[in-house]
Amino acid sequence: MSRPAGATAGPPRGTRLDPWLAQYSARATGMRPSEIRSLFSVASRPEVVSLAGGMPYVPALPLAEIADLMARLVAEQGAVSLQYGSGQGRVDLREQIIDVVALQGITAHPDDVIVTAGSQMALDLLARIFINPGDVVCVESPSYVGALGAFSSYEASIVHIPGDEDGMDPVALASAIADCRARGQSVKAVYTVPTFQNPSGATMGAARRADILAVAQQAGVLVIEDDPYALLDFDGALHPAIRSLDEEGVVYLGSFSKTVAPGLRVGWAVAPHGIRERLVLAAESAILCPPAITQMAIGEYLRHTPWLDTVKQLRELYRCRRDALVRTMAETMPAGVRWNTPEGGFYSWVSLPEGLDSRALLPRAIAALVAFVPGTGFYADGQGASQLRLSFCYPTPEEITEGVRRLAGVVRDEVELWRMFQQ
Amino acid sequence: MSRPAGATAGPPRGTRLDPWLAQYSARATGMRPSEIRSLFSVASRPEVVSLAGGMPYVPALPLAEIADLMARLVAEQGAVSLQYGSGQGRVDLREQIIDVVALQGITAHPDDVIVTAGSQMALDLLARIFINPGDVVCVESPSYVGALGAFSSYEASIVHIPGDEDGMDPVALASAIADCRARGQSVKAVYTVPTFQNPSGATMGAARRADILAVAQQAGVLVIEDDPYALLDFDGALHPAIRSLDEEGVVYLGSFSKTVAPGLRVGWAVAPHGIRERLVLAAESAILCPPAITQMAIGEYLRHTPWLDTVKQLRELYRCRRDALVRTMAETMPAGVRWNTPEGGFYSWVSLPEGLDSRALLPRAIAALVAFVPGTGFYADGQGASQLRLSFCYPTPEEITEGVRRLAGVVRDEVELWRMFQQ
Repeated sequence: MSRPAGATAGPPRGTRLDPWLAQYSARATGMRPSEIRSLFSVASRPEVVSLAGGMPYVPALPLAEIADLMARLVAEQGAVSLQYGSGQGRVDLREQIIDVVALQGITAHPDDVIVTAGSQMALDLLARIFINPGDVVCVESPSYVGALGAFSSYEASIVHIPGDEDGMDPVALASAIADCRARGQSVKAVYTVPTFQNPSGATMGAARRADILAVAQQAGVLVIEDDPYALLDFDGALHPAIRSLDEEGVVYLGSFSKTVAPGLRVGWAVAPHGIRERLVLAAESAILCPPAITQMAIGEYLRHTPWLDTVKQLRELYRCRRDALVRTMAETMPAGVRWNTPEGGFYSWVSLPEGLDSRALLPRAIAALVAFVPGTGFYADGQGASQLRLSFCYPTPEEITEGVRRLAGVVRDEVELWRMFQQ
Repeated sequence: MSRPAGATAGPPRGTRLDPWLAQYSARATGMRPSEIRSLFSVASRPEVVSLAGGMPYVPALPLAEIADLMARLVAEQGAVSLQYGSGQGRVDLREQIIDVVALQGITAHPDDVIVTAGSQMALDLLARIFINPGDVVCVESPSYVGALGAFSSYEASIVHIPGDEDGMDPVALASAIADCRARGQSVKAVYTVPTFQNPSGATMGAARRADILAVAQQAGVLVIEDDPYALLDFDGALHPAIRSLDEEGVVYLGSFSKTVAPGLRVGWAVAPHGIRERLVLAAESAILCPPAITQMAIGEYLRHTPWLDTVKQLRELYRCRRDALVRTMAETMPAGVRWNTPEGGFYSWVSLPEGLDSRALLPRAIAALVAFVPGTGFYADGQGASQLRLSFCYPTPEEITEGVRRLAGVVRDEVELWRMFQQ
């Protein structure tokens, strides 16, 4: 073939490092690697105590039982477990999910549920079907980094709503919605992690949940309720979901990542009919269908093991680790450091004394063989420099104690240094 | 709490059927359920011979071995296989993928690979990082329905390039790119399934591959090469990938869905450095990470079973089914029906005689207990009404023979009806 005459010279082909740089979409230019990504490759060394990641302690699971059920699913039901499935997820699993969310006071039908490849995918799909560039999502202060990433990747404008130890402030929420609308912005959702929030560890009480819902209802704004830690209350208390108060105004997201295993990537959304229909279409476009084998494994696990007893054991395990964390914090941290004592979940939120910056602290902490996540990751607007998140889910109590001691040493040194230069 | 004074009345809340109708994003309004979806719920009844779906014949896999390796992965490596993993996918699997793509003549480094939850996810991520609303993707005539869905869901403008039995016409491609640019449109990619195309069954020869690449290179347009059927040549021939000719200008997509099992949802992209970096960021935002257990299962399967021998057996099985299809077509179809005899893959593409519409034919076919996919699904622009896709991957040769007989009867009836009204 001779070179076709019709082909014009191409567009500018970017830089030598990336010839495609000029071709990316507007949304892609907002995707940036985390500034702390390179540090975490160092932090994953075994000698570092990681209080950074939110990895559940999967070695505590009944691995032999899970191994058996997976083998049976392949050997006896391979024609189904290894095949394509429905974009909405398996109906038998959706029926089981109805029973799981009933623990949070939710009444729903299996048709209302879509199974996703982890809860992150549900966040992505919700952003996809609701967000035009510049549309507003109201979130907590601080908020879950993965949700901020999902909303930002569809060019949402993220507005952090101030709060207190009881969660997002409803008066501030109403006022922010009104302000955004006065500026001509479309407010698409209120995003909340109401129970044992990531990263703050805070839990909204029942009255606050009702108040936040009332504000959203009055404003005609959807509530996205992200509740992966719901079953991890250290006292075994249950926290009725916001969704239990309103079927039409709330999309409820759940996950088996914290109560069973994240490596299976099985989460779900319970959504009003019209939203659920669009979520399914978006899911088919995104991945065709979630893996059949992992959905069936969760189904068998719920059906044939005392999984709520296992969750209870996990809660005990995490409670001991939380205790090790806050006890050692109290014993070792210098004055001016504040933290909360979460009643469940994986995280404690720490405020540093005046003059300290958690991003500047991180490389020093890693040099001292302990890792955390700086608070700035949990804000879309640059807040959080004086805060950090500590996870107590994965390391043992002994490791947590040692890690907090190391961190306290680094904080003390920094406080002294700052004081020296203030004199 | 008293109702906050700042909350204004909400936006219009849509219709009674969907109160959120007015809130969806522009991209969501383009997501529509397939017009044939309701028909396929009928077509899934066991008495219907489905020549519609592209489901690989997974019962032919060594299920006992796969069951064993999955059990071992959970029992012995549960702390890894059930845990979160890397957004880019496991490095050991990426090393194995390098060996797989080497069969298509591709030289690449494990860093160039991103593992995705099926190849559909790679299409979604590529659309996400490249497509602004109105940007052009050039595709074959017809093209893969899942790719059309992924590109459309990011509001791409899809341009079908005419072709022949050797695939997309390079002169027409060059001319279409020039025309789009003359209209001020940004052309972001050429999308092709070069080997045993879905739905046409056509395979590009080596010269045509080089010509298409040359046009794309000259125009500075990325080639997206989607190659899930590459190893399914019925004569065992290998078709060097377009990516084997150019590292910077091509993103190569592969999948274990057709050679191992789709229920594991493991696919991959081999991409130039800058694109791969953005794909990983987009993947983290979309699903955090692909399931660890299914990636490890594929890794063990490739490592410990004679998987290429199994692929060879699958090819033999699919060749017999292809033979049953084309033999029965030749025996039973009325004059004026044309079809191709694919040398591999899952699909044959059928053209109907004058006056017949494949969408109108489908309900009649299902009533006669045989299903297919109308050609219109494989075009974004309304073409394809006189064509349809037949899949020969899942039913047995006997079922295929019976299904084609039923279809031929329906086609004959329609031809007679049309002729009657033409007289």
